[in-house]
Amino acid sequence: MKMHQLLRDLREKNDTKIVLLVADGLGGLPEELGGKTELESARTPNLDACVREGVCGHTIPVLPGITPGSGPGHLGLFGYDPLEYRIGRGILEALGINFQVGARDVAARGNFCTVDVKGLISDRRAGRPSTERCVAMCQKLQTIKVPGVELFVEPVREHRFVVVMRGDNLGDKVNDTDPQQIGAAPLAAVGEDAHSQNTAKAVNAFVQQAGSVLKGETPTNMVTLRGFARYPAIETMKDVYGLHPVCIAVYPMYKGLARLVGMDVVDAGSTLSDQIETLKDVWAKYDFFFLHYKYTDSTGEDGNFEAKVEMIERLDAEIPKIRGLNPDVLIVTGDHSTPSKLKSHSWHPVPVLLWAETCRPDGVVEFGESYCLRGGLGQFPAMYLMPLAMAHAGRLGKYGA
Amino acid sequence: MKMHQLLRDLREKNDTKIVLLVADGLGGLPEELGGKTELESARTPNLDACVREGVCGHTIPVLPGITPGSGPGHLGLFGYDPLEYRIGRGILEALGINFQVGARDVAARGNFCTVDVKGLISDRRAGRPSTERCVAMCQKLQTIKVPGVELFVEPVREHRFVVVMRGDNLGDKVNDTDPQQIGAAPLAAVGEDAHSQNTAKAVNAFVQQAGSVLKGETPTNMVTLRGFARYPAIETMKDVYGLHPVCIAVYPMYKGLARLVGMDVVDAGSTLSDQIETLKDVWAKYDFFFLHYKYTDSTGEDGNFEAKVEMIERLDAEIPKIRGLNPDVLIVTGDHSTPSKLKSHSWHPVPVLLWAETCRPDGVVEFGESYCLRGGLGQFPAMYLMPLAMAHAGRLGKYGA
Repeated sequence: MKMHQLLRDLREKNDTKIVLLVADGLGGLPEELGGKTELESARTPNLDACVREGVCGHTIPVLPGITPGSGPGHLGLFGYDPLEYRIGRGILEALGINFQVGARDVAARGNFCTVDVKGLISDRRAGRPSTERCVAMCQKLQTIKVPGVELFVEPVREHRFVVVMRGDNLGDKVNDTDPQQIGAAPLAAVGEDAHSQNTAKAVNAFVQQAGSVLKGETPTNMVTLRGFARYPAIETMKDVYGLHPVCIAVYPMYKGLARLVGMDVVDAGSTLSDQIETLKDVWAKYDFFFLHYKYTDSTGEDGNFEAKVEMIERLDAEIPKIRGLNPDVLIVTGDHSTPSKLKSHSWHPVPVLLWAETCRPDGVVEFGESYCLRGGLGQFPAMYLMPLAMAHAGRLGKYGA
Repeated sequence: MKMHQLLRDLREKNDTKIVLLVADGLGGLPEELGGKTELESARTPNLDACVREGVCGHTIPVLPGITPGSGPGHLGLFGYDPLEYRIGRGILEALGINFQVGARDVAARGNFCTVDVKGLISDRRAGRPSTERCVAMCQKLQTIKVPGVELFVEPVREHRFVVVMRGDNLGDKVNDTDPQQIGAAPLAAVGEDAHSQNTAKAVNAFVQQAGSVLKGETPTNMVTLRGFARYPAIETMKDVYGLHPVCIAVYPMYKGLARLVGMDVVDAGSTLSDQIETLKDVWAKYDFFFLHYKYTDSTGEDGNFEAKVEMIERLDAEIPKIRGLNPDVLIVTGDHSTPSKLKSHSWHPVPVLLWAETCRPDGVVEFGESYCLRGGLGQFPAMYLMPLAMAHAGRLGKYGA
C-alpha cells in the first residue's frame, strides 16, 4: 500500500501514546423524522468535552454507500485500505472462535448437512442441530487424519464449524463444496493452481472420511465446506507505523482482527470496567491502545434504541478514566454505523472525534452525527485516521524538503 | 497523470487571467484553547471581501496527517500530484541557491568534513566553517575536471554546498557517500544501474580530486555527497493547461519550483510592493500569475504569532491592487500550514479562497480556518485547485456529450 510506504519513510520515534476507542456500530439514525440519533440522544458530557477541545467529523469506512462487516470496518480504522486487504470468510470464522490462525493455515467454514442413501443432500443445515450436538460431531471429525496436513476442526454453533488445514504450499483458490441446493451431492473440491490443488486433495480426503465417521449420525451425517481462505499477508502495525500496539477487547473476533495486524492481545476481562483496568495495567508497556466496545453494536442489531443510548452513556462514564492516563491522542469512533432503526450494520458515515493538544478548533461542542457534520475533520476515508493520529502524536516527519 | 490528460483534452483558449497568491505557511493554530488562529486574529477586510463574493474551503496538501515541505506543497498547488512527482534533495538544494538545473543534470548536496591522516572522518561538518570559508573552499573545488561531465560546485552556507554534474546518460540511483558516523572513511559511490554507474564513476573521480585540492585545508579537508537527484521530468503548465504562466517570487527556492513546471521567472524585487509592481508590469504578457509571499511562513517558523498576524495584515493591504487589475480568477491560499504554536510546517488543512464571477455563494463572510469549514469548496486535495481555477476562468470545455 502506497500510503504505508510513505508512513514508513516519514515515521519518527517518541514516547507518545495513542488510544483508539472503537464503539462498535456507533453511528445511528433517528427513529422518526425530526428525531435524534442514539448518540445525539445520549447524555455524554465527557465525550462532549473531548469534542470541544478536539476536532470531529465523520469517517467513511469503505466507500460511500458501502456497508462494511467487522473485518473491513476495523482494517480501515487500523489504516489498511479495506478494498486492498481482504479477509476471507474462513479466516474470519476462525478468528470469531478465537482460533489462532497463522501463516501456514487455510481455513474454511463448515456446515453439517444431511445426505440420503444415494449421497444427495436433503437438508443443507442438518435440521439446525443443537450446539451440543455440533460439539459432539466435531469431536468425531477431530479423529480424521489427512496425510501432509495438520487438521483442526472446531465447533462454532448449531450446524456451523471451522476447519483449518495447516501445512506448506496450501493455496485457497478452492471452490465451495456446498452445491447450494438440495437433491445434489456435495461437490468435489478442485484447486485452481498447484498449491490450491494440494488443498483440494486434502479437503476431498477429509470429506470422504467425514462421511465414514458420521455414518449413522443422521441428520448430521455429512459436511460441506466453503469460504476457503489463507491467512492474509498483512504488514504489522509495528512494521508500518513503528508502534507497539495492544488490543484490549472482550470478543474473540476483534482480538483476532487485532492479531492479524500484529497487535499484542491481552486478557481484558469481560466488562468495560475490566477493560479500563487492563488499560491502566498495560499503560506503561505499549504506545498504541485499541479498545473495543461491543454493546453499541449489539443493541443496534437488536433494534433497541433505548438500550443503545444507555450503552453510549455507560461508555461516556468511563472516558475520564482514560483521559486520566494522559494519552497524547484519543480517538473515539466506530467501525461502522448500526442504526437500531435498521437492526443491522449500515453504510452511513461514522462520527469520529480526535482529541490532542495540536487540534485546530472547529466550534463543535457536542458529540453527535449532525454536529460532526460541522467538524474540522470533514468526511474522510477511515484509513486516514491512523496518519492523523501519528501526526498529532508528533510521530511523522515532513514529506519532501 | 490521468487528471492532466483530461485537462489537456478539455482545455480551451481565452483571454482570462488567473492569479494564484500563495501565502507560504498560511494556516495556523490558536495559541491556547478557545483562542483564534493567526489568520482569524488578523484584520483582513480585503480578503474578507473576496470571501464574501467568492467561495472558500481548505486544501489538503498531500494526504491527511502528512506535513509537506515546500516542494510537495507547491507542486500540489500547481496541479501536480505530490505523491507522484517527487523532487530529490539535490535538486531542491540547487533550486534554493538559484542554480538553474536542467534536463541533463544530476545534483547532490555536499558537506565539507574533516578526515584524519588515515582518511577517517573525525567531524562530519568540518566544525561548521564560516560561509566565507565555504565560498573559498568551493572555489578550490571548482578547479576540478572530470572527463565526460560538466561540473558545477556552488556554496550554500557553512559546511554545505551543491554539486551539479551535467552530461548524457547520468542516473541518480547512487548511494550517499556520507557514512553517517565518525571514525569511518567516506563511502565510495556505487550506481544501481548502467546510467547511475556513469554518475558514480564521476562522483568518485570528483571526491578523489577533492581530497587532493583540499589537502592541508583542515578542518575542511574532505567532502561527502548525498541526495543525488536527476532533474525531474515534469510536464510544463503550458503543456497541461495551455497557460502562459509567470512566477513573481523573491526567494530562489520558489523561483526554482516554478521553473520546474515551466513558468517564466521575472525579477520581482525584494518586497511585496515590488512584487505587486512587477505584477502590473507583466500583466499584459501572461495569463497565469504565481505570486509567492514568504513571511507568513518565516514568522510562523519563528513561533511569532503577533508577527505572523502582522504579515497577514500587510498582505491583505495589497489585495486591492491585485483586484484593481481585474483578474478573472483570484486564489489566495498557502502551500501548507505553519502554526506559530508549532514553529514548523504542519499537516493541518490550509484555508483557501477562490474569487471569480462564477462562484456559488457559501455564506462565509470572513477568511479564517474555522470559517472556511463552512465554505463551498469543502476540504479537498490541493491538486484540484488548478482545475477549479481553469473552470472559473472559462478555460475548460465539457467532458463527454
